[in-house]
Amino acid sequence: MTTALASEPGPDTSGPVFAAHEGGKLESVPTKPLRDRKDLALLYTPGVADVCRAIAQDPDLSHRYTTRRNTVAVITDGTAVLGLGDIGPVAALPVMEGKSVLFKHFGDVDSVPVCLESGTVEELVDAIARLAPTYGGINLEDISAPRCFEIERRLQERLDIPVFHDDQHGTAIVVLAALINAATVVDKPLESLRVAISGAGAAGVAIAGLLRRRGVQDVVVCDSRGIVEPGRDDLVEHKRRLAATTNPRGLSGGLGEALQDADVFVGVSGGTVSEDLIAQMADRSIVFALANPDPEVHPDVAARHAAVVATGRSDFPNQINNVLAFPGLFRGVLDSGAPAITEAMKLATAAAIAALVEHPTAGEVIPSVFDERVAPAVAAAVAELA
Amino acid sequence: MTTALASEPGPDTSGPVFAAHEGGKLESVPTKPLRDRKDLALLYTPGVADVCRAIAQDPDLSHRYTTRRNTVAVITDGTAVLGLGDIGPVAALPVMEGKSVLFKHFGDVDSVPVCLESGTVEELVDAIARLAPTYGGINLEDISAPRCFEIERRLQERLDIPVFHDDQHGTAIVVLAALINAATVVDKPLESLRVAISGAGAAGVAIAGLLRRRGVQDVVVCDSRGIVEPGRDDLVEHKRRLAATTNPRGLSGGLGEALQDADVFVGVSGGTVSEDLIAQMADRSIVFALANPDPEVHPDVAARHAAVVATGRSDFPNQINNVLAFPGLFRGVLDSGAPAITEAMKLATAAAIAALVEHPTAGEVIPSVFDERVAPAVAAAVAELA
Repeated sequence: MTTALASEPGPDTSGPVFAAHEGGKLESVPTKPLRDRKDLALLYTPGVADVCRAIAQDPDLSHRYTTRRNTVAVITDGTAVLGLGDIGPVAALPVMEGKSVLFKHFGDVDSVPVCLESGTVEELVDAIARLAPTYGGINLEDISAPRCFEIERRLQERLDIPVFHDDQHGTAIVVLAALINAATVVDKPLESLRVAISGAGAAGVAIAGLLRRRGVQDVVVCDSRGIVEPGRDDLVEHKRRLAATTNPRGLSGGLGEALQDADVFVGVSGGTVSEDLIAQMADRSIVFALANPDPEVHPDVAARHAAVVATGRSDFPNQINNVLAFPGLFRGVLDSGAPAITEAMKLATAAAIAALVEHPTAGEVIPSVFDERVAPAVAAAVAELA
Repeated sequence: MTTALASEPGPDTSGPVFAAHEGGKLESVPTKPLRDRKDLALLYTPGVADVCRAIAQDPDLSHRYTTRRNTVAVITDGTAVLGLGDIGPVAALPVMEGKSVLFKHFGDVDSVPVCLESGTVEELVDAIARLAPTYGGINLEDISAPRCFEIERRLQERLDIPVFHDDQHGTAIVVLAALINAATVVDKPLESLRVAISGAGAAGVAIAGLLRRRGVQDVVVCDSRGIVEPGRDDLVEHKRRLAATTNPRGLSGGLGEALQDADVFVGVSGGTVSEDLIAQMADRSIVFALANPDPEVHPDVAARHAAVVATGRSDFPNQINNVLAFPGLFRGVLDSGAPAITEAMKLATAAAIAALVEHPTAGEVIPSVFDERVAPAVAAAVAELA
């Protein structure tokens, strides 16, 4: 234990947030009674040996007779935690615990945090693959881009359980769900929308990909240096792929050029967007300003120009929150024994979430995170595809 | 999922053991209420960011505000599971879950199984060290010898949380506890006992080491080829160390030579020992036949010659079971923040367990595994040393 010097006060740990975190937010609880020697002989030696032998003979039995049946690891290396950046694995643990709380609360999925010392892509893939026999699924979380893309892809190739990077696909699914209903509200066909995305990291790349797979033709992505397009010579690999698959009108320039006459702004950058730029968008525009806690443009300001406004915050209408997707999605794959989460499942999840808003309005394009119908509806849609 | 052919019936999963394992034996349960947006803002974003920032500034706060405070990983690679051998990580999971059930039940320690694909010592050390930020302690389990010795040693050098290979030290502690009381019953000073150990794997090595540190001078260890002694040219490294530190009378030969006039037999080999050999032991001898489920010699047979007999089984008197040690031991180090489990703590644990039998008799040299005084007594003894 380190000891702070009297002249270096530690962090302020007063207040309700720290009180709520006292002792951590999860416990590991036996589900079977241990009352006497008879129970001990069933749950542990000698009885347990029969279960071990059966699983050694048929490993699929692990999905019935062990916690693998219902356990998802929430795995991070702490390199891109919330908006805090690379704070390391130990400091990331409260977020992973929170995620596990949400998994259990909304999806009845047992989930355990796994916070790894960071390393090369190769090292992280090897470490996570080595752990995989313990779990029924893997939720990657808060791993920095562009490493997250290759880590996820290689794990998916290597493992026979679902591997899902929530910062990418969870975000993309809920954005698509909200956009399906927002398009109805502004009475424009989804496929025809001109979409400008600010942010070419994990979320931006995944949103662009899922929207295109849903048939949205005109997607333009900007990073901090402007529109991602083939004429730029500063693009890393995942941005070169983006440049090759988006921006069909061949725009160049900055976010201003991308937003000119755009129908949709999706902010996943953490930057800011001026009111002037929002004003340049098409009539009946849609603004999803998802940076947290400070949206790229204040929703009240955006509402002066846009017909539909959403944020990541709970204190404004239309909260776009991944918790609408991941608990039900993993519930569905665990229940059905699906070995992977497919693109079709992501699209079905977005559609299932969107469909729960029967009459979309500007004030409601997405269900509440506390809407108890969401996870079961998502799980059913996913299991049907499995 | 693989599908068994009709002509290849799967394992028989009928009966109470499989019923007790249906769905696994653990769940991951939130400890804080999640009722509304206000709770969500405390337990998850945006509130959780304050806790992350505080831990990034002072990592020791992770032992207060996260599950690290009370969580031990039960880690295996499935290479030496019970008496079943190398059955792999997935088939080992029921044992690790059972261990976690015992941790919670007896020590109120939250514990999660981690079953790793096996690999080289280097690969396993790296994988486990990379995971360590998640946990408050690491219990290694069912890792084959001699790899287990180096894996444990290197992890202890590298990490600042306790690392404990229970197959070694848990067994040694409980054997010592029982032997302290057995020596009283046969009225021989502990230090004077001639001890013959059958088995030079994880348990045998640790028992020899701990008995010697407790002052027992005359310890002889046998493997399947006989007495481990410097004259043998077939010894791997850990057995060469054993040969150099045990067998003070310079015996050679087989288990028969070791048991001639021995006061104590400790069987951790899984082999068998004939009644003739037991009969050759000294008067008022002590037999701990710990192979499970089949003791090296049946306790009724041993009792014809020995004054005190113990086994690993629950259906005979004097059950020597690691569960007497590990829950309280980890409870003690977690409560005290000790960065390691020391030799002094192991000796204190054995003494604390032994002391709970106020009047040792041949029929009671060790407390019942369900004696609720054990874990608190051990935890207090350990915390006092921390």
